[in-house]
Amino acid sequence: MVSYKRLLVAVDFSPAAETVARRAVDVAQAYQAELHWVHVVDYLMPLGLADDFTPTPALMVDEKELLEQGRQSLQRFLAKRDRAADPQSVLPGVPRQEIVHLARELCSDLIVIGSHGRHGLARLLGSTARTVLNDAPCDVLAVRVAD
Amino acid sequence: MVSYKRLLVAVDFSPAAETVARRAVDVAQAYQAELHWVHVVDYLMPLGLADDFTPTPALMVDEKELLEQGRQSLQRFLAKRDRAADPQSVLPGVPRQEIVHLARELCSDLIVIGSHGRHGLARLLGSTARTVLNDAPCDVLAVRVAD
Repeated sequence: MVSYKRLLVAVDFSPAAETVARRAVDVAQAYQAELHWVHVVDYLMPLGLADDFTPTPALMVDEKELLEQGRQSLQRFLAKRDRAADPQSVLPGVPRQEIVHLARELCSDLIVIGSHGRHGLARLLGSTARTVLNDAPCDVLAVRVAD
Repeated sequence: MVSYKRLLVAVDFSPAAETVARRAVDVAQAYQAELHWVHVVDYLMPLGLADDFTPTPALMVDEKELLEQGRQSLQRFLAKRDRAADPQSVLPGVPRQEIVHLARELCSDLIVIGSHGRHGLARLLGSTARTVLNDAPCDVLAVRVAD
């Protein structure tokens, strides 16, 4: 059997993250695999949405504080699921890039990520799952979540 | 445990299909799930590539013969892997559409498909994995295969 051994699970804290987390734990159990959780703090406004006169949020936010909030949120999220002891990363940046980068760094063999389909905002901006798929160094499990 | 029970595995007969098949069998074993195999006979030239003067291949090929060849190839492919008794479908059409349609029909809970990344021809034409991801009614496992 060609087993998955090192899973990387990307979560935000939307209602959909519950579905992704449950599935990831489930796959980890089926394969006796390790789980590494990642949350990307994506506080940069897409360039096209900023006008010339308004300072973009990047200039107004305190990155350190956002990362600390992210860390606490991820800890709470995992504690609720009895996974607080799992390795975890909270990173600033563009989710698709950071997820792929971390997967390479950790030699993950499966990325687990939520997928929203092509409706709504996801279609306009390009879903993270779809773009992760392009660059992932490993297999990707896209967990279907409600739009 | 939220198990996968009905897997739909899409294969062509490229060298990469071996990787996809192995992974699908592996997941099916981990989950004690059923496997349904599908091969889509995609003999229509993308519209943009046909000019006004050349009859498109659709007009020149014998669909019945192509489907029969597809059936035989799939049988051979599965027999080699001791999976000849698994349920299987060979369908004419556009792979991403037929795969998604069949997944709905079979109430599949996981589609397993090869993913080529964003390089080469896949980038130009849009990979099947990426477009399946958009419309899939269920989770999608994109198996990374060599370009």
